[in-house]
Amino acid sequence: VRIDEMNVTVVGLGLLGGSIAYALRRAGAAKVWAVDLNSDSLLYAEAAHAVDKGYDEPAEPLSRSDLVFLCVPTEALVPFIRDNAAHFKRGALLTDTSGVRRGLNEGVRAVLRPDLRFVGGHPMAGKEDQGFRNADADIFRGASYLLTPDAATARSDVDEVAAIARALGCERVKETDEETHDEMIAYTSHLPHVAAAAMVLNPLIERSRGFAGGSFRDATRVARINPDMWAHLFLSDAEHLLPAIENFEDGIARIKRAILEKDEPGLRDILREARLLNETKLIPKP
Amino acid sequence: VRIDEMNVTVVGLGLLGGSIAYALRRAGAAKVWAVDLNSDSLLYAEAAHAVDKGYDEPAEPLSRSDLVFLCVPTEALVPFIRDNAAHFKRGALLTDTSGVRRGLNEGVRAVLRPDLRFVGGHPMAGKEDQGFRNADADIFRGASYLLTPDAATARSDVDEVAAIARALGCERVKETDEETHDEMIAYTSHLPHVAAAAMVLNPLIERSRGFAGGSFRDATRVARINPDMWAHLFLSDAEHLLPAIENFEDGIARIKRAILEKDEPGLRDILREARLLNETKLIPKP
Repeated sequence: VRIDEMNVTVVGLGLLGGSIAYALRRAGAAKVWAVDLNSDSLLYAEAAHAVDKGYDEPAEPLSRSDLVFLCVPTEALVPFIRDNAAHFKRGALLTDTSGVRRGLNEGVRAVLRPDLRFVGGHPMAGKEDQGFRNADADIFRGASYLLTPDAATARSDVDEVAAIARALGCERVKETDEETHDEMIAYTSHLPHVAAAAMVLNPLIERSRGFAGGSFRDATRVARINPDMWAHLFLSDAEHLLPAIENFEDGIARIKRAILEKDEPGLRDILREARLLNETKLIPKP
Repeated sequence: VRIDEMNVTVVGLGLLGGSIAYALRRAGAAKVWAVDLNSDSLLYAEAAHAVDKGYDEPAEPLSRSDLVFLCVPTEALVPFIRDNAAHFKRGALLTDTSGVRRGLNEGVRAVLRPDLRFVGGHPMAGKEDQGFRNADADIFRGASYLLTPDAATARSDVDEVAAIARALGCERVKETDEETHDEMIAYTSHLPHVAAAAMVLNPLIERSRGFAGGSFRDATRVARINPDMWAHLFLSDAEHLLPAIENFEDGIARIKRAILEKDEPGLRDILREARLLNETKLIPKP
């Protein structure tokens, strides 16, 4: 992949799209253009040299772009590709950033012009503060980038998006199918957000200043989220999120029961099991 | 407080006692001695210059110490003070580090020699890896130090321990009563540990590599704990931990219900409330 020979359009210049624009510039992309309905974001992005130019209409930048990052809400992805079918450059590579994947390959393929290429992607990067003004190329450092090709996706296209993901700064690129993606993300991403929100919903928090240390701060960090976006995400993948929540409730109930029964050996066993899972499944050995 | 004129004994040279020893040395204490039953820890601490000398019997260092840090398990605190009553230096100041406080003022006072002074304390600092070999003076940087004096504790003694806590590197010293301490710590410290343990107890964790981003890592960090110590802590303060767990379960149930009912406005309201609480009650404004 010669990023320095690529013209790229980023559609949707929020936190993620803006961060991708910055990272593409840093990686040396020939041109980086942005499409957004918010003219303030476009002006700001131009002033910050995050993009060469911002557009409120997609036709012109799409017609000259070899690569298109579609950073739009999940439900807007297929309509955008369909409505702009006439505008894409011949043979362009399209990728997206949706955090819920089911049905996207099929939905996109149903409207994709035959000469265009699509590889679904989900960069696992973000931060609590949304919007272009918080965009930051460094959110990709050390992050995973998930790709969800299916049997009809060309190997070379997957490899191309993988190379671009690495050029953004991501440490790991993982290929998975849409169903597995959604099941795993409900557990590893949506559930921690549910837990953080639930944990701050306690009247004791009013008096917590001075009592809250690192464990509380970490456990509640992602309670500071965009309520609209996350309410939508939770409902979009309710099918996987509900079992993940129920499994979590079962784990809490196991611990609670051991406490109620003053079962110290049983409690130790549970905590030992948890520590072992945490150490062996999560923490990469230094 | 002239720390450079103080001889100090640290009783119990684990992660916390060891970190206190290092921090006292850094703060310029005249002498720092340690008492521990584990001769390996003592040798290691001497070799690392964390302490001037280690002892397996407390009589000698106690007899020369102006300040004694009792970093022993909660249930060993009162027996230690009682059993060593004859050894403490006249007028010495004693403090401890127990994370569960109820009854300690009364218990200590019942056995304390009249010339000795005691101020209960709980430095809110630690890390996942236990033992002297992981001790580190920097764990106190930015941390809170809780003190639990009661009406019978002399103001000057509280101020003295507060000054020492700051000399260790703590950012905040907060005075509270034992009951409030235990209620708040069950919520802000024990509950995050319950949640982290419960979250890793999911068979999906076996396949989580590459899917787990920052939110999962933060939410599960403290699942990597000492199972024996925490099982004991959970049971020692079950009276406060159980209501904190139940409140957490209620919060999760509220979110789950909104998802089940596909109530997007309701879900948004819950997440907005959580975000607001997180922002206004926890994150200090920069």
